[in-house]
Amino acid sequence: MISLADQKRRIEQGALTPDAALAESLTAIDKREAEIKAFVARAKNPKAQKDGPLRGIAVGIKDIIDTADMPTEMGAPSIYKGNQPRADAPIVMQLRQAGATVVGKTTTTAFAANDPTPTLNPRNLGHTPGGSSSGSAAAVAAGMIPLAVGTQTGGSVIRPASFCGVAAIKPSYRLLPPVGVKCFSWTLDTVGLFAADVEDVAIALAAITGRSELNAPELKSPRIGVVTQDFAGPPEAGGSEALQHAARAAAKAGASVRELKMPEIVQEAWRIHIVVQQFEAHQAFAWEYRENYDIMPPLLRKRLDDSRHFTPADYDAARNVTLKARAALSDILKDVDVLLALSAPGIAPKGLDSTGDARYNQLWTLMGTPCVNVPAYVADGNLPVGVQTIADFGHDAKAIAAARFMGRALKS
Amino acid sequence: MISLADQKRRIEQGALTPDAALAESLTAIDKREAEIKAFVARAKNPKAQKDGPLRGIAVGIKDIIDTADMPTEMGAPSIYKGNQPRADAPIVMQLRQAGATVVGKTTTTAFAANDPTPTLNPRNLGHTPGGSSSGSAAAVAAGMIPLAVGTQTGGSVIRPASFCGVAAIKPSYRLLPPVGVKCFSWTLDTVGLFAADVEDVAIALAAITGRSELNAPELKSPRIGVVTQDFAGPPEAGGSEALQHAARAAAKAGASVRELKMPEIVQEAWRIHIVVQQFEAHQAFAWEYRENYDIMPPLLRKRLDDSRHFTPADYDAARNVTLKARAALSDILKDVDVLLALSAPGIAPKGLDSTGDARYNQLWTLMGTPCVNVPAYVADGNLPVGVQTIADFGHDAKAIAAARFMGRALKS
Repeated sequence: MISLADQKRRIEQGALTPDAALAESLTAIDKREAEIKAFVARAKNPKAQKDGPLRGIAVGIKDIIDTADMPTEMGAPSIYKGNQPRADAPIVMQLRQAGATVVGKTTTTAFAANDPTPTLNPRNLGHTPGGSSSGSAAAVAAGMIPLAVGTQTGGSVIRPASFCGVAAIKPSYRLLPPVGVKCFSWTLDTVGLFAADVEDVAIALAAITGRSELNAPELKSPRIGVVTQDFAGPPEAGGSEALQHAARAAAKAGASVRELKMPEIVQEAWRIHIVVQQFEAHQAFAWEYRENYDIMPPLLRKRLDDSRHFTPADYDAARNVTLKARAALSDILKDVDVLLALSAPGIAPKGLDSTGDARYNQLWTLMGTPCVNVPAYVADGNLPVGVQTIADFGHDAKAIAAARFMGRALKS
Repeated sequence: MISLADQKRRIEQGALTPDAALAESLTAIDKREAEIKAFVARAKNPKAQKDGPLRGIAVGIKDIIDTADMPTEMGAPSIYKGNQPRADAPIVMQLRQAGATVVGKTTTTAFAANDPTPTLNPRNLGHTPGGSSSGSAAAVAAGMIPLAVGTQTGGSVIRPASFCGVAAIKPSYRLLPPVGVKCFSWTLDTVGLFAADVEDVAIALAAITGRSELNAPELKSPRIGVVTQDFAGPPEAGGSEALQHAARAAAKAGASVRELKMPEIVQEAWRIHIVVQQFEAHQAFAWEYRENYDIMPPLLRKRLDDSRHFTPADYDAARNVTLKARAALSDILKDVDVLLALSAPGIAPKGLDSTGDARYNQLWTLMGTPCVNVPAYVADGNLPVGVQTIADFGHDAKAIAAARFMGRALKS
């Protein structure tokens, strides 16, 4: 994989020009893209910038995010073929202002829901890279680009990062501007980043937000609460091993580690994530679902068909649970620095029919808490499983600092 | 003005066909539009629907809201001339699903900021109709349409309603879906409705949200807390009279009325509205401001020029104040049913250079509370001043019920 931190260091030392850094990515894309299929569009004539902390860094943008110089087809060309927004989304502008170069639009499941893309998992071509940010995860994992942007409504950043063995952050809700991004659920949709390593993610997030404290150094002796998420069902192949391995490695490296049970209200919040998501999705996709029913991506259409029964009262009750659960979770996170949980139930499923299950991510998306994926374990078939560090809302620096600790603990 | 409630009643009684109801609006637009200039685009061949609670009702959509059959130029044709979204925004779909017919796009100040439109105030052609939802307020006030959609980030729904003498609601934050709407500030932007009378607003809001309880009957003997908003500066011509008149009328009609002072944290929230709005606006308008600086609408550009100094720390501090103020306000709203405050400092300013001052609206937008404008007083020059009933977040039915009480109290 291409290390953003390493490219940045070499550029700052004068050992690498921004043009040469960008060329490394462009060459890698030329080499791997035909096989991996991570991009739906490539920038016509990408140029490195001379200034900015991310000069020379190539970035891929999930294709539900508006770009002024490339179409935004949202993984749904049946409806959005050739759709050309006039403006760049704010996250795209932030990247450009920080010096990065957008080299292409990455594949997304249709409207960031479930209908899969043709993208392959670079770790094992017989498996899905996960979704919905399939191309962003795969492009980083294949060593094509050092940085990519995705979004998460259920588990669409952290899960593909886990399946592809890359670092990623789903920051606190709306830390990155949620504008110019196709809406699925306004309460949940969160813009996130993928990179080779946690340090890379931290550097990029600090650079584009202007919040230098987000490039946080490793947390020493963190207090970690391990959450098995039994309430969301049991882990799958590779899952149990990964979480146990990570917890042991953390303890060995000096963390104080204990298992934490989530209170009933937090478990209830996991159960009603679907109500919030689908009630809002029926409004967000009203035009697509009602005016374009016959050409709707079939899996998303079925999800909408199956969730027509949620009422405003169901939704209000779900939002009430959400508020209470956020308060309860915030209390829990006074006693530990971070929670540690699986980023996905197990390894990437075989084949491309399914992008996997978001059940270990939905709660944290609804809570709006920062989550950082750290590759933790490699199962048979070279298939990785990740763990996520989860901090309180607004404490992204702590989630990153704990993830850096975990990264070192898992390497040693 | 065209009464939505009256048209609806006549249609349901069979005394008016939906086609004839729609024709009333189309004829009125033909008659008044050349003078008032409330529309930027008109639907090509608007047809009444046969079904739905709002069948036959003509609605105007503020031109920062996406429509699939008309361009969305955002009051900024220098940048968005001919901009044609592929999809209808969710609020447009909700209206269509409820049976309404979109007859045109209404004028908006550029990007819903300050640069004025050519729209005149139907109550007095020498005065501004207010903004940013200028065309929506004016089209209802001129008797062209019974219903219009606007948005509020500072005071862009309630203030023009006050200036034009129409009813309007800025509902609880995100009660109406904030999607497919040009973003100014994601924490603040709120979709709202204009109609001739509070009953009309209530019927429309209930119909499009599927929340029948929002068509709330008049509240009997409400407990009302009068807020003078001194912290936001003194009222202007017509303002003091309007609030005093409304408070006296309420007491006479059986309300329990007392003056309430806002605690310091709530006053502080009013002061930091600007931080939240402008910090987010710099992200939301990054493409327009950085890629189209020379052709930016000048007043918005200056506001962005003047607010470049806000830091992430300023923004985080402002959000912290916001959370505390919301909790404090919610406590206050346990002791009274609603607050009553001026909808604008006074009458509409003379001329079209300014759309007036949002200082009596900003706090409530930041608090996310429902606000309903009720015309309260007519100053010299036939210029109205409104008062707003303000309920706790999520209690839109109570704000409406109290506004209906105020409407009757002010008529008797």
